[in-house]
Amino acid sequence: MAGAAVILLSGGLDSATTLAVARAEGFECYALSFDYGQRHAREIESARRVAAALGTKEHLVLKLDLRAIGGSALTADIAVPKGRSGEAMATGIPVTYVPARNTIFLSHALAWAEVLGAQDIFIGVNVLDASGYPDCRAEYIEAFEHMANLATKAGVEAKSRFKVHTPLIKLAKAEIIRLGAGLGVDFALTWSCYEPQPDGRPCGLCDSCLLRKKGFAEAGMADPAATGR
Amino acid sequence: MAGAAVILLSGGLDSATTLAVARAEGFECYALSFDYGQRHAREIESARRVAAALGTKEHLVLKLDLRAIGGSALTADIAVPKGRSGEAMATGIPVTYVPARNTIFLSHALAWAEVLGAQDIFIGVNVLDASGYPDCRAEYIEAFEHMANLATKAGVEAKSRFKVHTPLIKLAKAEIIRLGAGLGVDFALTWSCYEPQPDGRPCGLCDSCLLRKKGFAEAGMADPAATGR
Repeated sequence: MAGAAVILLSGGLDSATTLAVARAEGFECYALSFDYGQRHAREIESARRVAAALGTKEHLVLKLDLRAIGGSALTADIAVPKGRSGEAMATGIPVTYVPARNTIFLSHALAWAEVLGAQDIFIGVNVLDASGYPDCRAEYIEAFEHMANLATKAGVEAKSRFKVHTPLIKLAKAEIIRLGAGLGVDFALTWSCYEPQPDGRPCGLCDSCLLRKKGFAEAGMADPAATGR
Repeated sequence: MAGAAVILLSGGLDSATTLAVARAEGFECYALSFDYGQRHAREIESARRVAAALGTKEHLVLKLDLRAIGGSALTADIAVPKGRSGEAMATGIPVTYVPARNTIFLSHALAWAEVLGAQDIFIGVNVLDASGYPDCRAEYIEAFEHMANLATKAGVEAKSRFKVHTPLIKLAKAEIIRLGAGLGVDFALTWSCYEPQPDGRPCGLCDSCLLRKKGFAEAGMADPAATGR
């Protein structure tokens, strides 16, 4: 047994695969999700299903009011981009970037890890086939880890050294899908779309839907969750 | 005008003085407080009064559920220490430490600063006459600042470099009180006690009450807020 670990779980396929990796590595998994005012709160229900299907010791869903801060197409009245080309997606940081989101999420994961006596935190960030978010890069994660060990009682008293695991960071979306499938992730339970259609189906056109579609195509697999188009 | 700044405001005398410093330096002040499930939620009302008295452009109170995480005498059923000696207070990290609290607070301040286009964040941490919290030290603040500039769109695109100001970090409580008084802080509006008595008065015996009492005594001033004992 590798001990307890906190796993950030959004309900998307990356974090579901990350949870499966943590479990495969022998960690006792404490999944953490956020109801932060996101346009696609639908993903929280997916997180619940993924947590139940993969087996977690506990699944905590915390409420945050990032809508009061705003500044993103996911938390304010800013249009979600649709139908962007791969080149467009590879250029710059999109309006779906939520200011300091991963820092806020990881901070809560750090707090919970400290209370649990856990040293390990997992986050499913990746830089290839990702949306160009600054808080998904390795240098950011390293800086967070360094800060975390100065921020906490556990870090300062050297009872533990926090480690932020990023098992997907160098994987392309197709590789993540293959990895998750091999570890038994049921992708039918996951949710990627930023802006569901009125009937509840994924839009099929936002960056997140397009990256998912491209990933399954490149993996040579069918997406078990209908994409809506 | 030095531009906009986000000031973490708890309602205590340190953060009230910090707000007064930021205002004196010419910043347009956006005060940020948290209703995080703290035992002494009374401090939020003090934060509102302080923000109104000192003049802020906006005061945002965000709800966080740190009680769901627990692990502290301020957010769980753990007794708040009373009547500790100065030596006891100077030794180790007390049970009133809230895991990763300043990291969670600063992460939200960072998000709001980015949305506002602000580069400056103020926090009233101090190491002398403080409670031995790890997330009040200069090396922690520097690590957070470094991480913040990697975490954000504004940091990465170098449109701004976030700076975390800690104007009180090397001041003793008596010096903070004199500084605040000189800048027009009305300490009658502030709140320090971790565990108010049933009648709403400060307990006078928790670390925070004792440090406040010692600070006013050393400053040779009367505390305009009755301490209850």
